[in-house]
Parts: sequence; C-alpha cells; structure tokens
Amino acid sequence: MKAAIIGATGYGGVELVRILHQHPRVSIHSIHATSLHGELLSETYPHMQDLIKETLQPANPEELAKQVDVVFMATPSGVAMNLTSAFLDNDVKVIDLSGDFRITDPDVYKQWYGIDAADQHLLEDAVYGLTEWVNRDIAEKQLVSNPGCYPTSALLGLAPLMKENTIEEKTIIIDAKTGVSGAGKGVSQATHFAETNDNLKVYKLNQHQHTGEIEQILNRWNPEVGAVTFTTHLVPMTRGIMTTMYATVKKQTTAEQIHQLFQKHYEDHYFVRIRDLGKFPSTKEVSGSNFCDIGIAYDERTNRVTVVSVIDNLVKGASGQAVQNMNKMLGFDEKTGLDFLPHFP
Amino acid sequence: MKAAIIGATGYGGVELVRILHQHPRVSIHSIHATSLHGELLSETYPHMQDLIKETLQPANPEELAKQVDVVFMATPSGVAMNLTSAFLDNDVKVIDLSGDFRITDPDVYKQWYGIDAADQHLLEDAVYGLTEWVNRDIAEKQLVSNPGCYPTSALLGLAPLMKENTIEEKTIIIDAKTGVSGAGKGVSQATHFAETNDNLKVYKLNQHQHTGEIEQILNRWNPEVGAVTFTTHLVPMTRGIMTTMYATVKKQTTAEQIHQLFQKHYEDHYFVRIRDLGKFPSTKEVSGSNFCDIGIAYDERTNRVTVVSVIDNLVKGASGQAVQNMNKMLGFDEKTGLDFLPHFP
Amino acid sequence: MKAAIIGATGYGGVELVRILHQHPRVSIHSIHATSLHGELLSETYPHMQDLIKETLQPANPEELAKQVDVVFMATPSGVAMNLTSAFLDNDVKVIDLSGDFRITDPDVYKQWYGIDAADQHLLEDAVYGLTEWVNRDIAEKQLVSNPGCYPTSALLGLAPLMKENTIEEKTIIIDAKTGVSGAGKGVSQATHFAETNDNLKVYKLNQHQHTGEIEQILNRWNPEVGAVTFTTHLVPMTRGIMTTMYATVKKQTTAEQIHQLFQKHYEDHYFVRIRDLGKFPSTKEVSGSNFCDIGIAYDERTNRVTVVSVIDNLVKGASGQAVQNMNKMLGFDEKTGLDFLPHFP
Amino acid sequence: MKAAIIGATGYGGVELVRILHQHPRVSIHSIHATSLHGELLSETYPHMQDLIKETLQPANPEELAKQVDVVFMATPSGVAMNLTSAFLDNDVKVIDLSGDFRITDPDVYKQWYGIDAADQHLLEDAVYGLTEWVNRDIAEKQLVSNPGCYPTSALLGLAPLMKENTIEEKTIIIDAKTGVSGAGKGVSQATHFAETNDNLKVYKLNQHQHTGEIEQILNRWNPEVGAVTFTTHLVPMTRGIMTTMYATVKKQTTAEQIHQLFQKHYEDHYFVRIRDLGKFPSTKEVSGSNFCDIGIAYDERTNRVTVVSVIDNLVKGASGQAVQNMNKMLGFDEKTGLDFLPHFP
Repeated sequence: MKAAIIGATGYGGVELVRILHQHPRVSIHSIHATSLHGELLSETYPHMQDLIKETLQPANPEELAKQVDVVFMATPSGVAMNLTSAFLDNDVKVIDLSGDFRITDPDVYKQWYGIDAADQHLLEDAVYGLTEWVNRDIAEKQLVSNPGCYPTSALLGLAPLMKENTIEEKTIIIDAKTGVSGAGKGVSQATHFAETNDNLKVYKLNQHQHTGEIEQILNRWNPEVGAVTFTTHLVPMTRGIMTTMYATVKKQTTAEQIHQLFQKHYEDHYFVRIRDLGKFPSTKEVSGSNFCDIGIAYDERTNRVTVVSVIDNLVKGASGQAVQNMNKMLGFDEKTGLDFLPHFP
Repeated sequence: MKAAIIGATGYGGVELVRILHQHPRVSIHSIHATSLHGELLSETYPHMQDLIKETLQPANPEELAKQVDVVFMATPSGVAMNLTSAFLDNDVKVIDLSGDFRITDPDVYKQWYGIDAADQHLLEDAVYGLTEWVNRDIAEKQLVSNPGCYPTSALLGLAPLMKENTIEEKTIIIDAKTGVSGAGKGVSQATHFAETNDNLKVYKLNQHQHTGEIEQILNRWNPEVGAVTFTTHLVPMTRGIMTTMYATVKKQTTAEQIHQLFQKHYEDHYFVRIRDLGKFPSTKEVSGSNFCDIGIAYDERTNRVTVVSVIDNLVKGASGQAVQNMNKMLGFDEKTGLDFLPHFP
Repeated sequence: MKAAIIGATGYGGVELVRILHQHPRVSIHSIHATSLHGELLSETYPHMQDLIKETLQPANPEELAKQVDVVFMATPSGVAMNLTSAFLDNDVKVIDLSGDFRITDPDVYKQWYGIDAADQHLLEDAVYGLTEWVNRDIAEKQLVSNPGCYPTSALLGLAPLMKENTIEEKTIIIDAKTGVSGAGKGVSQATHFAETNDNLKVYKLNQHQHTGEIEQILNRWNPEVGAVTFTTHLVPMTRGIMTTMYATVKKQTTAEQIHQLFQKHYEDHYFVRIRDLGKFPSTKEVSGSNFCDIGIAYDERTNRVTVVSVIDNLVKGASGQAVQNMNKMLGFDEKTGLDFLPHFP
Repeated sequence: MKAAIIGATGYGGVELVRILHQHPRVSIHSIHATSLHGELLSETYPHMQDLIKETLQPANPEELAKQVDVVFMATPSGVAMNLTSAFLDNDVKVIDLSGDFRITDPDVYKQWYGIDAADQHLLEDAVYGLTEWVNRDIAEKQLVSNPGCYPTSALLGLAPLMKENTIEEKTIIIDAKTGVSGAGKGVSQATHFAETNDNLKVYKLNQHQHTGEIEQILNRWNPEVGAVTFTTHLVPMTRGIMTTMYATVKKQTTAEQIHQLFQKHYEDHYFVRIRDLGKFPSTKEVSGSNFCDIGIAYDERTNRVTVVSVIDNLVKGASGQAVQNMNKMLGFDEKTGLDFLPHFP
C-alpha cells in the first residue's frame, strides 16, 4: 500500500513520516508541501538525513489520486476541504488531521475557525476518528476526520463516564496542559525559548477552537451537556498533553466502581491503559507512543470525580491516531506499525 | 533590628537569606540548622560564596531569644511548635514558615500532618499571615503563621469572590501547578532530573496537606464551603505556582463586573496585580518577586468564573510573604526590602 | 533467538527492553535485577504497563546459560566480571555494557574504577565493540565489551583523523557535554531537578573514568597520543551527548579535505552521518536513535580542526550499540531492529 | 543622577530597567525605542505591570542630552555610532552595550559586523569597559564600550594567565556555552522552544562576531596570540554563559600555583569569585547577579590548564557590567545597586 503525506513539513507531517517509515504494510509514496519543492525534507529536518529520500513536491490531487492508496492531510485548516474530493472520487482513502471535517455544523465551524465550512456532503461522509469510540465500520469509509489533540485526550477520559450516565452534565470542567509542540512549527513570541522555558503560561481560556469539537461529541453522547469549561495551559516541555477533568457524579459511588467502569470500557483497547487506583500517569510515560494513559480519583466529600489522561499530542493526538485509523480502514490490526514502547526517560 | 533564621539550609531558608541580605532595616544575626555546624552556607550553596559570612549554628532558643528581634522558622513540620515559646517569652517576634500553626483544629492538623498539633495557646496566639487579608493589627502580634505556597496562591485568587458572596460554595475546584522547588531540597525519584524534565506529573490529588489549610480559611470566610477539590501538578520548571480556579456564580454577571470586584479589593495592595480582562499571567512574570498576579474570565454559557493566580512559591509563597509579614509586625512599610522587579526572562 | 537482560532496572536496561521489544529476530527471554524480584518492570516504569509481562528475577548464570542465546549485562562495574564465565562456558554470547572489560591493563582499570580488574583471560577474550571500527570478525567472538557513552562519541569523531595521521597527537582536547540521564537512575543532589534545570554544570574535569578508556583506544591507534584533556559538562536535558573536539593538524589542509576524509571513512556505515560542511548536528537530531552525527570545521588561521559529534547516550552510547553488536555477533544486518528514525522534535 | 535607556525593549534594556529600578543613586529618566511610542513597557513585558510608569519614547539625542547625566545604548549594532556624539558634546556620559565601539580597527569591525565602523575619534575616545581590567581612570572618561557577553566571560578567565605570561599564546581554545536569551528577543527557528528544549546545539563555530573582540584584547595583552579557536554552543536554559578554556603552560607548574595566581589578581575584585581547587562553578550560581565565578584545573600529564568561568549573560555580560561601569564613571562604589545575591535555585 502506498501513502502520500500532504503538509509534510509541519510537526504532524514529520511524525507521520517517522511512523510510516517503520510501518510494515504501507510505504511512503510521496511527500508534499506548498514550498521547498525539490528539496529533501532533511534540509529542514536534519534528523532525517540519508533516511528519507523523497523530495518535497507540490500536491496535484488528480495525479496523486491515481498513484496512492491513502493520503494524509497534515495541512492548516481550509486546505483539506478543497483537495479531498479528487481523492474520494478515485477511491483513495483520506485521513485529514486538520479541523476541516471535525465540526458537522457549518456555523459552529465558522465560529471557531473563522472561515467557511467544507461542503455538506463531505461533512456527512467524514467519520470522526476517535478510534476507540468509532461504532460504524470504519473499514467501509473513505474519509476520516482525525480528532484534535485536546479532544482526543479529553474525550477518551470522559467517554466511560458519559456512556454510563455517571456525571452531572453541567459540571464538566476540562483543565488541559500541553507541551509547546502543540503550537506547531511556526515561530512566535509565545513559543520563544527564552520566554517559554522555566515558565508556565495560560494558552487559551474558554477560547480554544477545540472547544466546539469537544462539545459536539459530548452532546452527541448526551445532549444535556451543553457548554463546557475548557482551559489550556502551555507547559515548558516539547511533547505531551495532560488533561485533568472534573465532574460531579449523579449518585454517590466509590472510587472502585468508577475504576471498574474505566477498566471495562477499555479492556479490549490496546492503546488506552488504565492506571491502578491511586496512581496517575505522567506525560513522559506515553511520549513518542500512541498510548493514552488514564488515572482516576473520586472524593466522597465532594461527590466529584477527577480523571487525568495523558497522550503524546503528536502521536495519539495526531499522527499516531491517524495511522491507527488507517490501519482499521485498510483492514489491518490497529497496532500495525504502532506497537512500540514509549520513550522513557 | 536583628533576625535569626532557623532552618537556613532548605530552599525557604536560602531565599530568606537572599531577601534579608538586601533588607535596609533588618540584618541577619545568625543562621541555624540541625547539622553542618561551623560550616559556611556557601559550602552547600556556592552562589553565596564570600557574601554570607555567618556559619551554621545549632539553635538554642533561650540564648538566641536574648540576641535577636525576630526569628524565622523555616523548619520541617513539628519543629517550630517546640521552639517558639522560648522566643515569645522574651518578646521576640516569630514567623513560622512551616505548617505548625496554620491549622487551628488539632485533629485536622494530625489528619494532614500525621503528628500531634502544637499547644492550644500557641495555636490561638498565631495569626494566619495571608498578608493582604489579615484584618487584625498584625503589628501587635508576636507570632505569625506564614501560609503555605498553594494556599497563598489559591486564597488570594478566591478571596474577592468569597468576600462578595459571588460563587456557589460547593462548586470550588482548585487545579494547581507547581515548579519542582516546591518539593524542597531533599532528593527523591520524583524530583530526579531525568524523569522530571520534559515531563508533567500529577503531584497529589485530593491528598495534599495544604487541603486542610485552604478549607479552613475558605470556611472561615463562609461556612457553606465545606470540602473543596484540590489537585496539584508538578511542572518541569524550578519556581512558580499557577493556580487555576473554577466556580459557578450565584447570579449571572459579566466579566467586567467580576474584574472590577478584583480591582476594588486589591487596589491598595502593592503585591497583588490584576491583569486586564482577556489577559492572564505566567509564572515567570512574578519569578523572584513577592507579587501575586491574577487574571480572570467569566463564561456566560456556563455561568462559571475562572481565576488564574501566579506566585513564586519561594517568595510570595514562603520567604517573601514572611518578610512582608515581618515588615508589618515591625511597623515598616510592607514593601521594605521587597520592592524589586521580577526576573524576566 | 532469546536474550536475557541482567540489570534491567537502570536506564541502560530499560532502553534495551525498548529496543529488543521491537527487534524482529530476538525476543526478551527474561529480565534480571538484584531486587524487586517477582515484580513487573512497570511497577518501576509505568510507561511499560501491559507491554512487558516478564517479572524481575535474580540472575542465576548457570541456569540462565542453558536457556538463552545472548545475555546483556547492564550492571554496575564489578558485576559482569563475575557472571560472564558461566555464559561463555555454555556458548552464550555476552555483551557487557559496564566498564569491566573495556580496560585491558588491570592497573589502569583499578586506577579509574577503584576495584580489581577482571581475570586476564576474559580481558583478552573481550572485543571492544566500537562497532564501526571493529576489525576482527566480531561474529566469531563470544564476549563484547560495549564502549562507554563518552568514548563512543569521542572516538567516532577522532577516528578518521587518527587513522589518517592528520593531527598532532599531543594537541587533542575533548570537551564533552551530556544530558543528565548519563548520571543514571540513582538520585543525588547533582541530579536534583531544582538545581539542575536551567543550569549548566561541570560534571568531571580531567577525572572522568572514561578518560582511561579513550586514551587506551587512541594510543592503540597511535602510541604518540599519551594523555588527552577530557572535560565533561552536565546540560539541562535528559538525553544526548555532544562532544566538541579540537586538534592541530600536522600539515596545512582545507576544510574540504578534512570533510572528504570523514565521508570516505564512514560512507559504508549506516549509523554515522556526516553533515555538509558548515553545518553541525544537535543532540535532538539523533535522540532515541542509534545514529552518531558529525560536523567538522577547519580554521586556516590556527591550523586547528574542530569536530562535533552527537549521540543519544542511552542508544548509540549504550543499548543501541549493544544491539548493533549483537546483530553482528549473530550474523544479522547491523540495522536489524535499529532502523528507526530519531525523535524530533 | 538621571539615566536614559535607549533600546529599552530588548533583553539588555529590560535588565537595565530592573537593575536601575533598584539603584539608590540613579533614577530612570526615560526609556526609548524605535516603535511602540507612548506605550508602557509592561504592554510588552507584563512582569513590569504597575512598576515602570514611563512610556516608550523616540530618542532625540539633542533634547535628551540636556536632561540626563548618563545614557545607556542597548541598541543593535550601527545605532549607537550615530547617536553618541550629541551626548558627548553635552557632557553626558555614554555607555554603549552594542559592538559599535569595541573594535578599534575599522576593517576588523566591518569584517565581523558587516557595516562601516564608527568615526575614528569616537573609537579612540571609547574605553573598553571590562571593569576589572580597566587601567585608565574610567571616572574621567565620557564613553565606555561595554564588552560582549562571551568576551567578558572569556577574558576574565584568561586575563591572569595572560598577564603573568603563563600560557603558550598559540594554544588558546575557548569553548563557550550560552543560554538562549543570548540570542535576543527576536523570534527565529533557532530559538523556537519545541526545537531548542531538551536539545544542545552548536551556535557558531569560528564565526561568532565576538571572535574579533576577544582576539583584539588578547593581542593587546600579548601580541603573540594571533588568532584563537572560539566555539559557541546553545544550551537549553534561559540565562548564563559557561566558558571552558584550554591552554598549554609555558613551564610545568602546579594547580596550586595557578590557583594562587587567580586569587591574587582578583582578591580586590568583589564581582569575581575564585572557587577552591577542585570545585567549579555552575551558571545558576551567578544567575541574576553581576558575579563572574571561576574554577581552574591543571593537568600535569598534558601541561594544560583548564579554566571555567560563568556569568549571567544579561548581567555581568551586559547590563550589570554597564551599571558597574556607570558606578565607576560617576564616582560611586562599583557595587552600588548591584550588591544582591544570585537567584538560586
């Protein structure tokens, strides 16, 4: 099987290259970007020297559609919506890592992304690829909208509580902390080392564009949810998201019951690991891997449950989950090419 | 005026040395520790070479009480409760940076600290020194219990909302993030660089000993509060605490009204700075200084207020606030010796 | 093929587990340590949860020798020398990551390591496994002494110059900088986060135990070398070594000539990559991988060549090179199981 | 006394504001920049909120010269050379933190800075302000050229050896490591957090513009020096420079003799501290302060001396030394306003 990566020069694209380079069933056919055409990716990323021999090319969807089996869009918002149809028309599977197909309501998309939404039929065709919670047979689908990094972390942590109707819908608070690679490769004062190192910042508060995505899925699971509180912080580390979530339970319970509920829902899911009661994961414990690790606590005094989930924002939060989705679309085991240990220390 | 520092080799003690070294009205009379007697502090802390010439001494309270005007206890829990009376009996002012006099209920103290509480009369004599909110005339007091780092950050952020009866008492959630110096000078796997760097960890969840301290003060302000949810995280940075707090407001309001409420309560307090609406402080913006900077937001969709407060855990969260309290006890301007800018970048 | 890892709880052991977990030809038979027997490695390293199912066992060399094909010793100095014979007697291949078999002169070993050296016949049997420069047929050997992290970085950078007799032997200066994982898993004040973060320290100056190892090999290549100057620094990062080396050339040359010399010597070596002239590698460009990347410069004004080499101290500097050596000992391609990209960013 | 700061928005300017804010004898008259006129500095640097009330102004030298006693130029190269005369003509003392007056040979200036040098009479008037080694009576001078950060660190470390004719002139190698604030406030890929964190890079090798400055002073001390080898590295920390220097001694000596030589030369210099033999400073031990700490070693085996010097690049390497020079120009004690402890941890 052959894959093309459009938007190969961003961090999501680079991580796709790393993962697909090791994939036993799929090879990289070509890499694409809007500039640097003809250059090796190692001109920008010397860590790839001698390893990735394809040069950067412009993306011609019609041509490309005849040559590849699957295409990854690791592009800024607004790009994939225009390139996708050419691939679908040629039965090429498309996995979009941008926000273009995540929000099904065009008005909500425009509110958060500031541009017009994709065509309605594309929005309807796209499966929201939170892999562990995709009910439909993803193997039959042509277009997967890969979730955002924060939504992946938050939704995997809240899903069991939502599915079991455990928590008061109006009490959900999501306090997320991300490594700086989450802000992408583009330089800015906010990601300038001298002001970011040894410093903890608020990133966006009630204003992150992933808010709409999280709310859409939570309300799909239970329409009582409405709006949630969602805060993001910028932590002086490169990779990783930790999301600490709070909600009040509907009826008094025990930590053990909550814990069993998580274990039950994830026991068949290789990439979600539940810590023992009283233990919580750290971001480095999933670094470089496709795992989402989760710890939970329940405080009888307040009737409140606390869920802590961690992912590598560039892997399970982007490229790893994209490959996991690809594996399922192509009929492979979801672990194929992703079955490596986290990097620690 | 002469000051002694008992427990000079921990980070709180070292920061007291730094601040008092610059203080125009008080000089360091002597420094004390339980070991290393006769050694210069610069044997342990080379950054003090040639600057601090006192050697470490054992602490003999009866002797010392005749020689100094004020004593700082930067000792582990359980020490200050045994040394303090000798100083009070000799009219020496005592500022305790440990937890010994913070919890007025002996049972609650024992629950969180695991040892027996101090004598009842000492607990009654001690003023809880959250400087901006001390109503009694601190200048007349002999014993100040200096607040913990997390409580300082959380209580300064919640106080205006509590005092104005703005928030639902049962909805308070405190999500705190600290730099690693908060865990002290003692080595441990949890603070080992290779596993802490580039990593975000949960520190304690519903189990930090500052929980009792925070709840005591909140309930003093409004007994409806009861228990709160309090999470702490360990951020890969040396100094700084950011506390993100959530609560539901009692009646719908606006961000502007909340903002004005904070400005009003802190307008005469030099060391608390309120950011403009829409802006939030980062920890480095107060690093090395005694400031507590606060940003606030209100989301109409959820009726929830979010408060972000930052301090340097070793300054406003410990030694700086201790000197601020000393200044007020000795009748100086609270800024004396503390009027320096944060270190940035 | 089956491998045992003795000393599995240190960082070298953990990295062996990570690499062998992915190895297509060799599986982990058992993991051994001096304590924690019966425990899962994930009790100590939660990032391995559900992935490594072997429990820690004591190492019984006689028993183990009948069950495995190869054994890795990732133990402190002084351990491997006592366990190795039992494996060799049973035709089990041994790769020792400690210093026990690196120094062929027992007096020099004792000088740097402070304990008595291994038996003479073991020292004679051991091949020094700087893989790119092993001339003898390593596939016929039973015992490989895996080089230290600093020597790997320094020797790969100096070898072409030494082999071509390019530099004045008495002018070699090696200025090395390491990430903190190089100091191991054991906690100490020197690796305490609060004092290591945002700080650059001298580690050891003219006193690192790798000095003897570096000098032994350089003098093997050219006995005129004698002693070298070797400085190590501790950089606030987890992984990586950068070694900056200086030497005066014997006869005036050009940067291009020096560059070609490096390209020639390493053109057939997959794991050594030479940067283009004017470019220098950073440690992150090899992080998590088995590559050694090298940049070089020559200054006509001083007749001095500067070589910069980087490795991941835990991979090419320890466990990766150990697996590379195992591959060659077992007749596999040296890249087997090691052919993955560095982690970036 | 009143001071103006031109170029107040860079890190050097901001550090001048911090230091002068605390200075007991000099007050900040005005702050100047090429943009943001009318804005508070705290719009750019929120850590200054409520503390610095001057707004940014354009710099009109003729006007300003009538209002202030001293002016600091913290501007890019090429600016100070055009503004300085107006101040000197009005007997205003000028301290330039840029490279404009450091290089006395116009050709050498142009070679390293790429633009034409300042007027010859200004170059002749300027004193090179390496404070501890200024022989002329700086109090009589009007124009001080403040040394670069690397040269300060390197020259303070080499000066005793040069003055005593201890080392072979042609053997000097300077291996410097800097924190990322040394690259300034301007954003770039080289200082992007995600690629700089947990990473060690070569900054410039034989090509840093401070090479000419270092060589000029060394050759002033001893014309036999000629060219030196000078390498700079970028360390993942915010502040600090460590410079490790190597040279061969002319006649065999002992570590004790070298150590005494350093102690003798710096015994009357408050801001240079010599570590005991066998100990070496780390960058954090001078962070935020004006100290230069030095450790030395001598290896009998190689006849080579190693000197390690550390400074805070923004303080002793820029603004602190500038204020130290101001103090001497204005007849104050050199410590005035600079007598504060380093920040540790």
